[in-house]
Amino acid sequence: MLLELYRTFGINLDLALEAQEIVRGETGREIPGVIVNRESRPHASVTTVSIVDQAAEKTMGKPPGNYITIEAPVIRENNRPAQQQVAAILAEKLASLLHLSGEAAVLLIGLGNWHATPDALGPRVIDYSMVTRHLFQYAPQELKEGMRPVSALAPGVLGITGIETAEIIKGVIEKTRPDLVIAIDSLAARNVGRIATTIQIADTGISPGSGTGNQRTGINQESMGVPVIAIGVPTVVHAAVIAQDTIDRFREQLKTLSHLKHQDYDNLSPEFIRPAIEEVLQPFAGNLMVTPKEIDTLIMHTARIIAGGISMALHPSIKLEDYNNYLN
Amino acid sequence: MLLELYRTFGINLDLALEAQEIVRGETGREIPGVIVNRESRPHASVTTVSIVDQAAEKTMGKPPGNYITIEAPVIRENNRPAQQQVAAILAEKLASLLHLSGEAAVLLIGLGNWHATPDALGPRVIDYSMVTRHLFQYAPQELKEGMRPVSALAPGVLGITGIETAEIIKGVIEKTRPDLVIAIDSLAARNVGRIATTIQIADTGISPGSGTGNQRTGINQESMGVPVIAIGVPTVVHAAVIAQDTIDRFREQLKTLSHLKHQDYDNLSPEFIRPAIEEVLQPFAGNLMVTPKEIDTLIMHTARIIAGGISMALHPSIKLEDYNNYLN
Amino acid sequence: MLLELYRTFGINLDLALEAQEIVRGETGREIPGVIVNRESRPHASVTTVSIVDQAAEKTMGKPPGNYITIEAPVIRENNRPAQQQVAAILAEKLASLLHLSGEAAVLLIGLGNWHATPDALGPRVIDYSMVTRHLFQYAPQELKEGMRPVSALAPGVLGITGIETAEIIKGVIEKTRPDLVIAIDSLAARNVGRIATTIQIADTGISPGSGTGNQRTGINQESMGVPVIAIGVPTVVHAAVIAQDTIDRFREQLKTLSHLKHQDYDNLSPEFIRPAIEEVLQPFAGNLMVTPKEIDTLIMHTARIIAGGISMALHPSIKLEDYNNYLN
Amino acid sequence: MLLELYRTFGINLDLALEAQEIVRGETGREIPGVIVNRESRPHASVTTVSIVDQAAEKTMGKPPGNYITIEAPVIRENNRPAQQQVAAILAEKLASLLHLSGEAAVLLIGLGNWHATPDALGPRVIDYSMVTRHLFQYAPQELKEGMRPVSALAPGVLGITGIETAEIIKGVIEKTRPDLVIAIDSLAARNVGRIATTIQIADTGISPGSGTGNQRTGINQESMGVPVIAIGVPTVVHAAVIAQDTIDRFREQLKTLSHLKHQDYDNLSPEFIRPAIEEVLQPFAGNLMVTPKEIDTLIMHTARIIAGGISMALHPSIKLEDYNNYLN
Repeated sequence: MLLELYRTFGINLDLALEAQEIVRGETGREIPGVIVNRESRPHASVTTVSIVDQAAEKTMGKPPGNYITIEAPVIRENNRPAQQQVAAILAEKLASLLHLSGEAAVLLIGLGNWHATPDALGPRVIDYSMVTRHLFQYAPQELKEGMRPVSALAPGVLGITGIETAEIIKGVIEKTRPDLVIAIDSLAARNVGRIATTIQIADTGISPGSGTGNQRTGINQESMGVPVIAIGVPTVVHAAVIAQDTIDRFREQLKTLSHLKHQDYDNLSPEFIRPAIEEVLQPFAGNLMVTPKEIDTLIMHTARIIAGGISMALHPSIKLEDYNNYLN
Repeated sequence: MLLELYRTFGINLDLALEAQEIVRGETGREIPGVIVNRESRPHASVTTVSIVDQAAEKTMGKPPGNYITIEAPVIRENNRPAQQQVAAILAEKLASLLHLSGEAAVLLIGLGNWHATPDALGPRVIDYSMVTRHLFQYAPQELKEGMRPVSALAPGVLGITGIETAEIIKGVIEKTRPDLVIAIDSLAARNVGRIATTIQIADTGISPGSGTGNQRTGINQESMGVPVIAIGVPTVVHAAVIAQDTIDRFREQLKTLSHLKHQDYDNLSPEFIRPAIEEVLQPFAGNLMVTPKEIDTLIMHTARIIAGGISMALHPSIKLEDYNNYLN
Repeated sequence: MLLELYRTFGINLDLALEAQEIVRGETGREIPGVIVNRESRPHASVTTVSIVDQAAEKTMGKPPGNYITIEAPVIRENNRPAQQQVAAILAEKLASLLHLSGEAAVLLIGLGNWHATPDALGPRVIDYSMVTRHLFQYAPQELKEGMRPVSALAPGVLGITGIETAEIIKGVIEKTRPDLVIAIDSLAARNVGRIATTIQIADTGISPGSGTGNQRTGINQESMGVPVIAIGVPTVVHAAVIAQDTIDRFREQLKTLSHLKHQDYDNLSPEFIRPAIEEVLQPFAGNLMVTPKEIDTLIMHTARIIAGGISMALHPSIKLEDYNNYLN
Repeated sequence: MLLELYRTFGINLDLALEAQEIVRGETGREIPGVIVNRESRPHASVTTVSIVDQAAEKTMGKPPGNYITIEAPVIRENNRPAQQQVAAILAEKLASLLHLSGEAAVLLIGLGNWHATPDALGPRVIDYSMVTRHLFQYAPQELKEGMRPVSALAPGVLGITGIETAEIIKGVIEKTRPDLVIAIDSLAARNVGRIATTIQIADTGISPGSGTGNQRTGINQESMGVPVIAIGVPTVVHAAVIAQDTIDRFREQLKTLSHLKHQDYDNLSPEFIRPAIEEVLQPFAGNLMVTPKEIDTLIMHTARIIAGGISMALHPSIKLEDYNNYLN
């Protein structure tokens, strides 16, 4: 199976929607324990994949919970009004996962490495975020209305700090006692078309080994002691996935040749295919990423949309038309 | 007294050496409880100011401990060999304050705001620092010889995170249990000649209200539970200090006029002088900083020297001529 | 006279409005050959200083032409709607100086050093600007309506390139033949209150020695062969100006002392005052700048306003409410 | 043929060495008009490919001239002494192509987009370069000994400036009259192993369409009027090349299956293969790049080596052990 093949390259599919599509494509029927809901919006389609039992957890390779995916190719265009609408959808969907009192405190965590462009989405969102926790003790009552205390941290990655990211976050949570953590991360997709066009919101937090930064310890309710919502956007596709997919499409193409019999090349084991891919990707293997040339710009736009959506969800007093005013 | 006058503008003198010079200048004699030692080195002079009792603490406005000041105008020139020698002096003096076993763990903290140039020294040092803690559990024995586990964090400032810097650091210390913290910060000097030429190492950590970032809670053994060494370099002079000093020099100048009597203008109270300064600095008051135009470059050079000096002090196996190789 | 005193420190007043205020303050009457017009707008006051003859040129130390100053303290607040209104005023005033056919080509020049924060305004505006020249030969007619070909360059400074900025610009003008150059630069003000609150638009271009970057050759119609409009915003005050002003205010203060006679200290020559200032500013002299701590953020906001105002002026089809959408 | 197939995706092979290897691999014999020389050095192997006639120009898809390739995997390790040796080899080889009098002036051009990480090599080299042209008219004789006037420019890319890069460079050349141009650019390789390990020096300048930035006009002696040496380092591989190579290796793998006959799948036309690749790369096609995650760091290291090598070649008075001192 494809999901397993990817794993032999150390690759997890970060998007539950892609995992669901692959499993469903291979089995040809609904996946037991997985509920899928679709909505259509202007500029975006929204799919919620809910994993409801342990069997589904195993099939999908993802912990039980809700994974909301916003697919909005318009993000990649430099069309601000449409991007604002996507931010508003993000705000609405994020709000649907929050079960917070009006004054509950939220800690934003920007995961990833600011010195590695495709991994810099999380820290960039923190740059653009509206932080209010420190103002709260002094602010007059009318300013507090419709606001809540929000703090934000970009903890860096293991190679920069020498410290597991989860340890830093846990330490800060214990000192500041937020009621909820929202963690923003760069993701790897299977399909290049998803780069900077798809946003996933998951109420499961972040599992060990997911995300482009590959944190080893999960950042979720179990490890952190408070609920963790993860927001991610694909910024890369692993080169190994591109290579694997190319071989698959090529095999489809071969099927159109009348003089070849399907069984000749169709039942090839992963062990047969893998060396071809490994040879091409030498000496980097799992560390080679495919990105569009304009990834720096795409990350800037995407970070702004996410920061705006979060601010709208957390501070209901901010109106859609004003959200630009609350960005840095 | 001048120290008190500065305080009316919310300004603390970060350099113990400057505080000592002012107090000594005003009283005209040695300060009880303050011991001063001077050494001369190629490219640098080194002064150690030790504050040994509470009376001296009060006079100087600084907690008891040792403040080592390296004055090296050569830092401001783009002369790498000389800068390496300054890094070596820093390493030697820093080592003299460390009382660590060979394997004791150290946490580097880069204080300040990376988005405000004169306040970015601390985060820049972290960028250039050699982090080893995460390698330690896997490294072969021969690599560990002469090395120790070092981690590093640039926690940001209150306005960016919404969290008191001291809270973040305390949380990380409790999770990672270092034996020592070294905190690097931008300082404010009294004299523009000290900008990017003077390095202060203090075994007292950082007191509330010092540094350009003005953290409210101290970062010291008392608040952190482990020894804290502070390394700072002046990157600015408060505009209010410049204004005050200008008036003082002007008054000296006036004394040369034979038709004026000293008492006419010499016994002016701070309350008389302050409005002149406040008016000039409107509407910024204490937030106006004086820096040389080339401050961005100066901070880059200084950060490299400090990161190099720290690496040499913490990892004795690194030789002077190689320290460039250990910088990022 | 104050203007001359500043010049002994190598300092020119970049704002015609400040020069006019000083000259008028010293003489106590209107300046012959200088016409001043004031308008009041929401969030801004607009003053046009026109220098109409050579005598006025000499008095003011500025070439004949129109200097429009927009004073808008609101720029320094993070209030986007108000900032958009300032951008609209800038657009309107800039348009009043343009005498361009609908298809005339414009070259934007961002002067200054991107590695020196207070000097980085020009390059930042280029970052945020809407460039269209390369699209023009392919664009369909309906897209071209209300647009014109705009190109943009941040040529760097002499210390980075080894080339006089004016030479680079002249070379590019000769190759690309724009009908107009708009040059954006950081300015030095006399008054700290003007930092990031005042915008000057001048149809004289840039004279030798003005701006914080101190280009030696002017960038104006004479040297470039096409009309040059200069847009500048103060980002610093020279420390020498602060020092000088402090002495002046202090002397005013001294006048309140009944036992001192005015003549005692009032007729002091610049030669008498200067040493006091020089001593305080050692070893930097003219290169010491006073800036607010938050200058990085202020420059980002200001650059966005200027880029937005220029885009609105050059492409009349862009509406006020959409200008955010045209920024990078 | 492979070179032609790549071109159908708009991809040129930037490295003459790779083009030579492919052509030679396909024909199985020496290429007429192409002379290849190999040398072995500590940490590096050096290959010179000389294209000496028009037939070879056509086969290779590259203009006649000398292409020196330094292959040094050590660049990718953080080993400074070895990197210095590579810089010294670069200096030596570059010097062998220079036919300059001691005082001839050189203009360095850093091609590419500083806002797109894998395309930022050129501008980064300019950042690290030693610029002397502006010092020259004032420098004392002893400082000039062994130095020459060097200027430097990073002109940006068409999407940022709206101006063809070649136009900007031509304009600056006409104003400043250098005797030689050295243009630094990011390249695309065929093989990921070459990313940040291979340096190409070519005395042909840059042809239209080469480099990752795809300038349309060449930057060479013909267009610029002065000799142009190009220095390039691969920072990416086109995703289409990875996909194509994967299919080729997969077909090799298929050959090991005894039940398949070679002719069954070996004589597949490019038209047959291309749709599989295009489908995988939708919607980006030629704009998808493969890079290692650590590309930001790799570009920083590579830029330092190139800037150091250029400085040593241009200023023979700089010794190997000092070259770190001449970097910014």
